[in-house]
Amino acid sequence: MLRLFVEDSLDAGATIALGDARHHYLAHVMRLAAGEPLLLFNGRDGEWHAVVQRLEKGASFLQVREQTRPQASGPDLWLAFAPIKRGHGDLAVEKASELGVSRLLPVTTQRTVIPRVPVDRYRAIAIEASEQCGRLTVPDVAQAQPLLRLLDGWDAARPLLLCAEAGEARPFLEAVKSLKTGSLAVMTGPEGGFTEEEFGELRARPYIHPVRLGPRLLRADTASIAALALAQAAWGDWNRKPEAGNQKSE
Amino acid sequence: MLRLFVEDSLDAGATIALGDARHHYLAHVMRLAAGEPLLLFNGRDGEWHAVVQRLEKGASFLQVREQTRPQASGPDLWLAFAPIKRGHGDLAVEKASELGVSRLLPVTTQRTVIPRVPVDRYRAIAIEASEQCGRLTVPDVAQAQPLLRLLDGWDAARPLLLCAEAGEARPFLEAVKSLKTGSLAVMTGPEGGFTEEEFGELRARPYIHPVRLGPRLLRADTASIAALALAQAAWGDWNRKPEAGNQKSE
Repeated sequence: MLRLFVEDSLDAGATIALGDARHHYLAHVMRLAAGEPLLLFNGRDGEWHAVVQRLEKGASFLQVREQTRPQASGPDLWLAFAPIKRGHGDLAVEKASELGVSRLLPVTTQRTVIPRVPVDRYRAIAIEASEQCGRLTVPDVAQAQPLLRLLDGWDAARPLLLCAEAGEARPFLEAVKSLKTGSLAVMTGPEGGFTEEEFGELRARPYIHPVRLGPRLLRADTASIAALALAQAAWGDWNRKPEAGNQKSE
Repeated sequence: MLRLFVEDSLDAGATIALGDARHHYLAHVMRLAAGEPLLLFNGRDGEWHAVVQRLEKGASFLQVREQTRPQASGPDLWLAFAPIKRGHGDLAVEKASELGVSRLLPVTTQRTVIPRVPVDRYRAIAIEASEQCGRLTVPDVAQAQPLLRLLDGWDAARPLLLCAEAGEARPFLEAVKSLKTGSLAVMTGPEGGFTEEEFGELRARPYIHPVRLGPRLLRADTASIAALALAQAAWGDWNRKPEAGNQKSE
């Protein structure tokens, strides 16, 4: 069943209007007709069963029926990542959303050559991945910021596991299991790595835990996905069973 | 430094000829000139330092100098996966190669609609990922085979962790930590899942351990990457440090 994220409040009997891209997707890509069912969520009111009330030229109208799942949130897990070129970062954003991160933090580094980090595209990717994987929230995508500004504003109560290619580092799984914390972040470097100067800055912060992901050199996106899987399995919510309603729709 | 997989034997003083695509890549994409260094491996003789001896029209000639690392092999870890459409499977093959699998087994299922599984393309992807991640082997890519034939020929001494979307299943990390085995396999289902009939066949085999990867629904490629990261971290070689010579070349 089609599952859509909307900004509107959700309550029994409410009518939701979709325009533009969301309307096009519902009416012309997924080809839903009046009377057909779908699921809606907004990150606040849980998940709701709805039906297509009517389709007009340029807009779809949905009627909200009954709640299928109450609101719940996942682990307080952030991913900081460093896209350096156009196209970099898309896969990390998609997979991180599926894997249940709560916040995505694009950072720019000394090796970044991208003129503008495409935060709007990341948001669209995060929404689509969240719709497909059954989660009740969409990860927040922060504005891109330089690495040092991110570090200077960091709340030291949130440990930051730094996936390091060089220097002293503990195996990721061992490090994450040793943390007693309700909030966590993972950071992966850019393709090509952080510079020596950046590594120096990173290692000087007391909340940073350098960790490694085995003996092979992983691409930045692979490292993000692997690290988040380990964090969720050893620290997050992967001991929980699939939620009711979280059924494959294909 | 450029790192290439070759089929030839590697020994000090040997000359290696590259033609066609490999020559094009070396001479025109990477633009190496005579005298420039690179690294070679073949999965048998370790890793060797070599130099470009001369470039001709349509062929490159390399001279092998000294060994940089002795041959070593990674964990005996297989991935069985079920591509159903064209393009499906490419990402799983690339990431599984980086993550250190020793064998990739494409399987066809009742939901498979691809006319021909592109095993040759998978082999090319596996070679390229192996070159980039610093491993000394390239994963073997088996011919595609129907699920039931794979199961009927399975060596029961190799546990198969089945990433299951439904039914009784243990958390992946808990299951993999409980296995005392020198060989292991992970299997992910196709997009849309296995059929009920296939699940029945799978669950009837004593070497199959149904496992789950958290409460959200993962795409097939995400599930493969996440499962392999957990297997390597909890059972494989991710307690090992990066090998000498395994340096980022960018």
